[in-house]
Amino acid sequence: MVQGMANWNTGQTQKWLQQYVDDWVAFYRKRTNDGDVASYIPALAQADPDDLGISIIGKSGMTVRSGDTDMSFTLQSISKVISFIVACMECGVSYMLDRVDVEPSGEAFNSIMHLEMQQVEKPFNPLINAGAITVGSILPGKTSDQRLEPIFQLLENMVGYRPKLNVDVYESERDSSMRNRAIGYYLLETGFLESDLNVTLETYFKQCSIEVTIDDLANIGMVLANDGMNIKTGEAIIPRQIARIAKVLMLTCGMYDASGKFATYVGIPAKSGVSGGIVAAVPPRVRDEPMPFTDGCGIGVYGPALGDEGNSIAGIRLLRHIANQWDLSIF
Amino acid sequence: MVQGMANWNTGQTQKWLQQYVDDWVAFYRKRTNDGDVASYIPALAQADPDDLGISIIGKSGMTVRSGDTDMSFTLQSISKVISFIVACMECGVSYMLDRVDVEPSGEAFNSIMHLEMQQVEKPFNPLINAGAITVGSILPGKTSDQRLEPIFQLLENMVGYRPKLNVDVYESERDSSMRNRAIGYYLLETGFLESDLNVTLETYFKQCSIEVTIDDLANIGMVLANDGMNIKTGEAIIPRQIARIAKVLMLTCGMYDASGKFATYVGIPAKSGVSGGIVAAVPPRVRDEPMPFTDGCGIGVYGPALGDEGNSIAGIRLLRHIANQWDLSIF
Amino acid sequence: MVQGMANWNTGQTQKWLQQYVDDWVAFYRKRTNDGDVASYIPALAQADPDDLGISIIGKSGMTVRSGDTDMSFTLQSISKVISFIVACMECGVSYMLDRVDVEPSGEAFNSIMHLEMQQVEKPFNPLINAGAITVGSILPGKTSDQRLEPIFQLLENMVGYRPKLNVDVYESERDSSMRNRAIGYYLLETGFLESDLNVTLETYFKQCSIEVTIDDLANIGMVLANDGMNIKTGEAIIPRQIARIAKVLMLTCGMYDASGKFATYVGIPAKSGVSGGIVAAVPPRVRDEPMPFTDGCGIGVYGPALGDEGNSIAGIRLLRHIANQWDLSIF
Amino acid sequence: MVQGMANWNTGQTQKWLQQYVDDWVAFYRKRTNDGDVASYIPALAQADPDDLGISIIGKSGMTVRSGDTDMSFTLQSISKVISFIVACMECGVSYMLDRVDVEPSGEAFNSIMHLEMQQVEKPFNPLINAGAITVGSILPGKTSDQRLEPIFQLLENMVGYRPKLNVDVYESERDSSMRNRAIGYYLLETGFLESDLNVTLETYFKQCSIEVTIDDLANIGMVLANDGMNIKTGEAIIPRQIARIAKVLMLTCGMYDASGKFATYVGIPAKSGVSGGIVAAVPPRVRDEPMPFTDGCGIGVYGPALGDEGNSIAGIRLLRHIANQWDLSIF
Repeated sequence: MVQGMANWNTGQTQKWLQQYVDDWVAFYRKRTNDGDVASYIPALAQADPDDLGISIIGKSGMTVRSGDTDMSFTLQSISKVISFIVACMECGVSYMLDRVDVEPSGEAFNSIMHLEMQQVEKPFNPLINAGAITVGSILPGKTSDQRLEPIFQLLENMVGYRPKLNVDVYESERDSSMRNRAIGYYLLETGFLESDLNVTLETYFKQCSIEVTIDDLANIGMVLANDGMNIKTGEAIIPRQIARIAKVLMLTCGMYDASGKFATYVGIPAKSGVSGGIVAAVPPRVRDEPMPFTDGCGIGVYGPALGDEGNSIAGIRLLRHIANQWDLSIF
Repeated sequence: MVQGMANWNTGQTQKWLQQYVDDWVAFYRKRTNDGDVASYIPALAQADPDDLGISIIGKSGMTVRSGDTDMSFTLQSISKVISFIVACMECGVSYMLDRVDVEPSGEAFNSIMHLEMQQVEKPFNPLINAGAITVGSILPGKTSDQRLEPIFQLLENMVGYRPKLNVDVYESERDSSMRNRAIGYYLLETGFLESDLNVTLETYFKQCSIEVTIDDLANIGMVLANDGMNIKTGEAIIPRQIARIAKVLMLTCGMYDASGKFATYVGIPAKSGVSGGIVAAVPPRVRDEPMPFTDGCGIGVYGPALGDEGNSIAGIRLLRHIANQWDLSIF
Repeated sequence: MVQGMANWNTGQTQKWLQQYVDDWVAFYRKRTNDGDVASYIPALAQADPDDLGISIIGKSGMTVRSGDTDMSFTLQSISKVISFIVACMECGVSYMLDRVDVEPSGEAFNSIMHLEMQQVEKPFNPLINAGAITVGSILPGKTSDQRLEPIFQLLENMVGYRPKLNVDVYESERDSSMRNRAIGYYLLETGFLESDLNVTLETYFKQCSIEVTIDDLANIGMVLANDGMNIKTGEAIIPRQIARIAKVLMLTCGMYDASGKFATYVGIPAKSGVSGGIVAAVPPRVRDEPMPFTDGCGIGVYGPALGDEGNSIAGIRLLRHIANQWDLSIF
Repeated sequence: MVQGMANWNTGQTQKWLQQYVDDWVAFYRKRTNDGDVASYIPALAQADPDDLGISIIGKSGMTVRSGDTDMSFTLQSISKVISFIVACMECGVSYMLDRVDVEPSGEAFNSIMHLEMQQVEKPFNPLINAGAITVGSILPGKTSDQRLEPIFQLLENMVGYRPKLNVDVYESERDSSMRNRAIGYYLLETGFLESDLNVTLETYFKQCSIEVTIDDLANIGMVLANDGMNIKTGEAIIPRQIARIAKVLMLTCGMYDASGKFATYVGIPAKSGVSGGIVAAVPPRVRDEPMPFTDGCGIGVYGPALGDEGNSIAGIRLLRHIANQWDLSIF
């Protein structure tokens, strides 16, 4: 229990939490230079590696925001969670799980090898590229814009406005990602893809290029934490079963090759993107002592300097610190 | 919410739960013939494939037991959780995590390939054989009995009596497991092993051969669910951090190649063994409606007919059914 | 020594050899139904599985032709030898061997895994698809026709006329080979490709679609057997060093996953294609007893029914029989 | 053609060849410091990295010896060729090829991965450790000495005396080679091994520890070059078919991961060992111009400083130079 606090749900509490988070954002910002911003496309390479921001939104409405809170950045791999949710909502959970597995892969997110090596029935999970591209081929719609429409709608339902596509990032992704084209052609040949490859890759590159803020991520996390309900509107916008599966996948596969370590040291479902964003969903939990956000919260983090595994290096450390201090783990 | 129940903590409730579990044990017992008992050693091959039993112990002391509740069987891979906990308690968490990783492997539990293929720094996690054997080499003690002593003590603290070694099973394991010897020599050559290989393998084969019942497993699960505290004695017998890590590993790697599917469909930390046992730890959770065992529970299952991935086939189905019905998921 | 023959270089000999080969072509034609014609594009699927023909051209000019000698078929993988020779002639042996290795791969010809698994410096050899596509990217020329020009010229120098492109096959290959596009994009991303991917793949699909006959293949084999000299014209059309490397690659990697077995049982440099063609180059050799074609020969075989490894099933058996009978092995 | 020589089979020729080889031995000795002696056991680590010697024995009896000609060293992996030949002679070629394949592996000689990854029917070839250990399990005899007896006898038939076991090396190998024990237990579990593992490994470690000189290796190479006949005694000591297969394996798999490069740049069947020895077999060949040793020769090389792939670094360069100068290639 954090020193001197008996009840976390007061205005006094919020001030203390704010001060606490401000202190640690300042501390971990110094550690950003242990990492590097993604450099494979110019739009990402221009990010300021020293940026670091966090937004926490609790069920009760309590909000703590700190650091660089106003940056917008692209979803990148975080979009894989959203597109999988949308595909499950459009096509059914059984249909999707017949086509994409839910097992951690032990391999890099962009591995082709694994598909080939084990003559697998289906991609390991929807959060590796092979799985996400397969999901993109299943989404209904002839054009990429038709396929993206329900993704934009779900995002709007979660964050309260319709986010925009960053066209520069989209075009850079489209023109530079040879590995994803290789994966796409491989999937096409092995019969995993359900529709035209070019439309599928366009869909995938566009979903990666949707722009958000850390408040948006915190809202997304809050919806997932609440099993699919938007607590602001009281509306159930994702079926509970699908929200649960999304959280399972985030916990077991959400942080690239460091997913197991993140689960071990932090213990909350989260998904990172190469732009430096992280979304985390903290379900309500039972604690013997008073703790902040026991009724659950959503967290958005932005810190574009990445560690070896492709996750925001300062963002991970900040999340780890706060999660341990406030005992946010689901375990 | 289960029909007609407003409050789960009454004698009336217990009767209803008992009836409910009895019905489903009877139902899933019919499905045992979809699987086969392990056949690589005689002691396991003699198990009755139709056996199925479950024991659930809640924090409040409420207990539901059903089916073949009196069978004793060996821990097998379930012991990997115990030995890892003991090693962390003896040598420290940092020391252990420097030597064994905590990442899901995407490979079979007895894979050597993965070690070689990626020139990994360390075995993927302590629940695959390479990791468990490495753990066994780190446990303090010159002889296998010295190394097993703290394992027996921890088990005694959890289940209330000192369990016994099944000597027949141990000798069969020792004499038949060529793959584990191959893994052992590989680890020896690559420098992962910290002590004599023969003592290490003896330790490993012995820990696999400790005999338990489903009540024992339920008690073990209950201690883990309560972050290391034995609710009967009120004693903290495993440090909270270590109990948490154990649950993370059970969730991400506990059910062999079906770990992701189990997390997705069941959503609780659990570990299976090839003898047909499963231990599950259900932490306390918040639910909007009354649900059974919201203050957490430990579950022990026995069903020796195994599915393709090496987990009790009827046991998994029974757990899945009950977990969904009672909303036990941690997500 | 074949019964009753003291000197193989007479008209009488030729009659006997002709009779001998006719008998064995008839015999092995019955075995064609152990295999199947390639079916991934219509043009190959329409081949008659019962076809079998062989053409043997010796240095002295002695020729033995038998079976279906007039069929034309596409080079397919046999073209990989030609394009590698041309690339070496255009860019130099050192330049090429810096960019494509000469090691057998132990993997399927169309594997991506190997590139990824070992983070190899370069594709294993120019006779697997990844290597052949890399070679195609190095050939000088902005368009595929410019890159193919020296290939057509070399073929013309070897076979005496300018062969034609089978446009139907080319278009089918281009439209159906998703795996090769996957390999191409992978190579593009990892930096192996030296020029535009589409032009490179066009070049590759076109070179595979050049039409030849077994006499053409025998002439090609004869040039290679003679270290690059066309014995009919007396012209050195391939530098000796390059002809030698081509023969090494044919021996070690020429028959897909059965290369080692072909070397063991037959022992001559040869390359097969999925259309059912095989080219073999038999260098001059020393024998204690009189044997046919001791001054070397080129052999062309056609038999579109393929065995499991993608080689002409009757063609391999016919070659094996004749090579053992006439002691053609280079070992 | 080497300048100024019209006929290579005179005393004058021999002087010139001797001078020529002496010069190049002196030259390449300076390159030994690009490599390192094997260090995994003391007996090998004590070798003098500057040593370099070569022995060439022609069919006509012409012999050229140069450099450090009197060193004795252990066969190491060269013994794999011998034990495979003996096993073929004892059990039949078909029996052996049913149990060990003849395909290059594309993997390190001591890989376990390959066995596991592809669920192969049998080890890739008898020159990788998994194959050689399998061969050792098939050799008749209850004890390792019984199994080694025909190996010693064949060696005696080839080199003219019964070579000795280096007991120090044997004991070091036995005590240090954990990887080979890992491979052995893996083979035992998968059913490849035909007899007791300990006897098999003893056999393997002993055959690796047999002591020879470069003259011995040259004699062994000469027997193989002559399809199994000892030209000194006129005796056929290895059946021709088996001698041929041995040469195929040496060419395709004899120089570890550099086998393809050695075939490309040198072009003769050869096998190296980690002690720094190389045996090469040059069959008789046809050349338009006079060349040395056109009637075939055996070559033994010793140079314990090894390059990255485990082959004698100066030995390879010396062989390459001489083979190119004298046009020894079989292609």
